[in-house]
Amino acid sequence: MPVTLTTPARNTAAHPTDAHPTDADCRLPVLGDEVRAPLAGGGEIGYAALDYAASAPALRAVWDEVAAYAPYYGSVHRGAGHLSQLSTDLYEESRRTVAAFLGCRPDDELIFTRSTTDSLNLLAGALPAGTQVFVFETEHHAALLPWAHHGHTVSYLPAPRSTGQAVATLVTALADAAPGPKLLCVTGASNVTGELWPVAELATAARRAGARTVLDAAQLAPHRPVDITALGVDWVAFSGHKLYAPFGAGVLAGRADWLHGARPYLAGGGASRAVTAEGGAVTVEWQDNVARHEAGSPNVIGACAIAAACRALTGAGFERLVAREEELLSGLRAGLASVPGVRELSLFGPQAARVAVLSFVVDTWPSEAFARALSERYGIGVRDGLFCAHPLVRTLLGADQEAADGCEGPLKAIRVSFGAGTPAEHLERLVRAVRELVAEGQPAA
Amino acid sequence: MPVTLTTPARNTAAHPTDAHPTDADCRLPVLGDEVRAPLAGGGEIGYAALDYAASAPALRAVWDEVAAYAPYYGSVHRGAGHLSQLSTDLYEESRRTVAAFLGCRPDDELIFTRSTTDSLNLLAGALPAGTQVFVFETEHHAALLPWAHHGHTVSYLPAPRSTGQAVATLVTALADAAPGPKLLCVTGASNVTGELWPVAELATAARRAGARTVLDAAQLAPHRPVDITALGVDWVAFSGHKLYAPFGAGVLAGRADWLHGARPYLAGGGASRAVTAEGGAVTVEWQDNVARHEAGSPNVIGACAIAAACRALTGAGFERLVAREEELLSGLRAGLASVPGVRELSLFGPQAARVAVLSFVVDTWPSEAFARALSERYGIGVRDGLFCAHPLVRTLLGADQEAADGCEGPLKAIRVSFGAGTPAEHLERLVRAVRELVAEGQPAA
Repeated sequence: MPVTLTTPARNTAAHPTDAHPTDADCRLPVLGDEVRAPLAGGGEIGYAALDYAASAPALRAVWDEVAAYAPYYGSVHRGAGHLSQLSTDLYEESRRTVAAFLGCRPDDELIFTRSTTDSLNLLAGALPAGTQVFVFETEHHAALLPWAHHGHTVSYLPAPRSTGQAVATLVTALADAAPGPKLLCVTGASNVTGELWPVAELATAARRAGARTVLDAAQLAPHRPVDITALGVDWVAFSGHKLYAPFGAGVLAGRADWLHGARPYLAGGGASRAVTAEGGAVTVEWQDNVARHEAGSPNVIGACAIAAACRALTGAGFERLVAREEELLSGLRAGLASVPGVRELSLFGPQAARVAVLSFVVDTWPSEAFARALSERYGIGVRDGLFCAHPLVRTLLGADQEAADGCEGPLKAIRVSFGAGTPAEHLERLVRAVRELVAEGQPAA
Repeated sequence: MPVTLTTPARNTAAHPTDAHPTDADCRLPVLGDEVRAPLAGGGEIGYAALDYAASAPALRAVWDEVAAYAPYYGSVHRGAGHLSQLSTDLYEESRRTVAAFLGCRPDDELIFTRSTTDSLNLLAGALPAGTQVFVFETEHHAALLPWAHHGHTVSYLPAPRSTGQAVATLVTALADAAPGPKLLCVTGASNVTGELWPVAELATAARRAGARTVLDAAQLAPHRPVDITALGVDWVAFSGHKLYAPFGAGVLAGRADWLHGARPYLAGGGASRAVTAEGGAVTVEWQDNVARHEAGSPNVIGACAIAAACRALTGAGFERLVAREEELLSGLRAGLASVPGVRELSLFGPQAARVAVLSFVVDTWPSEAFARALSERYGIGVRDGLFCAHPLVRTLLGADQEAADGCEGPLKAIRVSFGAGTPAEHLERLVRAVRELVAEGQPAA
């Protein structure tokens, strides 16, 4: 139950699905719904934000909760005043709301971080000495790089071309591993192809071999319910700004033991229970609860925003959002597939289950120019590049290149991603734009 | 100049001092101005937020800029769409605005972090190997603890009882130091007493001995203009949430060389320029600019909020805000001094220059009960405790205890802090409340 504030405004906003009935097709309103983008040829058009996988707009319900709370903002944890008490309650209530959203076990801890990158770096710094980490080389950089950065031994597993191959690859790697603590880091849904990874199966394989699993849910949590208990993973990390709550907070949730045993993430107030200075030496007694890794003043608004997003998604009926997304995604993929020379990138093949993220290349256009044309001529915002997942995209482009019979492949890809706030018209416009641009061909420089 | 968006709303909000004329006495409106707090005896009263040193309310002008921007929020840096371009421009413009606010040198870098604690931990991780750190044991934990936490050799300097003694202590310590890189970390204004430290003099002494200086401006920046060039410090750190911008962002600004030479703060996208996986090994080429320490998606709203606060403070005329604060602080200190048994804590003595932060003890009340009574009976929010500066507060309480002729001193203190949004009435109410509570004495349990 959300904290009750003293104004009716807050009580209303705490129940976003009452205040914001969803569309007939259950689209959720987002900030930016009314924003228009200028067109290169003159005039303007409603902006089509199709870069949700990088960062999603705030749900209107999230914004309303933030706006309702903001006047009540106060210092948390150690303030004696009314707003400090209220803000502390809200912060801790937000923690419980997000933990429930993730299906956390009773003894799991949930740390508010700044982002998925931050969460995974925190965990990387908290692993017991000698931990061997297993990670597919196809992960995006936030999941790929923190482990070696913190001095751990890492086994980089080769790109699997099916979910079954992913599990088999892990099983083999774990069978060869030396004794000692082990961790598998796996993404839930690819930030490049949207393809779902076999998280539960991988976590089971890991557990059987005595390894723990951290799930990078940055791209999964906005699109599918994530249940840490049902999936059998040990930790989950995600970012508020991809979950319609772009206020600088993220989450790491899961097993407390390694976290409590670790060096505090940051040194500072909050993480330190007692500090004494005597004879030129300073002695610190660190907290051994969730505060251990939350030094400094918490981002209360960021945490409140994530909790609001969890409430809004749950309140809207996540299964309805998934059904809508799948329908839109099918239409989009069919539309793109019907355009000659447009090829969707895929690791696991066209039939693999996936969320609303896809990347493609156009034979006759460089990706960067194509993305720019989508923006300038159609008011559509996508992304071109390697999407902070260089090895994966290079693998996919390489495979694509072979498929293209040896002709020189594009160096980058174009990514389209959407979510609960996307109107069908944005995707229809994209397919039409792709068709028109491909038909025209790239203009001479 | 702020980024120009396509809506008039944004253009208006970008000039907060036009949109929000200050009070006759140049108080700046803040969110929460209208909030009322319940009283234990029934009824309610306008909430008096006097815990700015922990976290300050958002300036109305900051909120208005955030609200104007929020619909235009988009992924930054690598998005091809209109809102991505606009958000990237805003983010980088915010960086330049804050750098100008801090008087940065042309080749300084400004990194958006999450807080002062985060900034100082980042710097602690970026010091060259073998750096000796000098820090007064009176610092709050965020400035005291990160250095040893990151494995550096730290000289904890004893509590000085005057600004001159602080400089002399540093000079002596530096004279005895071994060759090699050295860093002084010093706070600009105490988070316990509000007393100003002799930053320029300390930085000069440090420089003469070949040491660099980082200024912890968490409590200074909200109350006094900070000029990194004029002060001669190498880095400055502060938190948005103490500067009326509580949206999860902070700042570390200063010399680029050590930052560029350091291991990236977090491993992930953005910080990595190129990543290749080959033969079971992953190779990373890190950025060597500001992106090196900003892995993950930036907190654009947090950065935008800090820049808005900088504009609002500068636009209001910082010297007028300082004059107003000094007048209010004089009245508050005189009022508290007139109540028998109330004693203000001080390191440098009653005449020392200070900002709007002060701590006191009441002979006849435990601090915790006193703070609670201020909240429940007067709607005043202060803080009791050791304020994440345990050694300093214990030193001050110890000295105070001796002054009290050996009778058992209080274990905690009460802190009052205020700022640009505080009406005079809040401070008048506090003095009246303290007088009344002291006259009554602590109620029997």
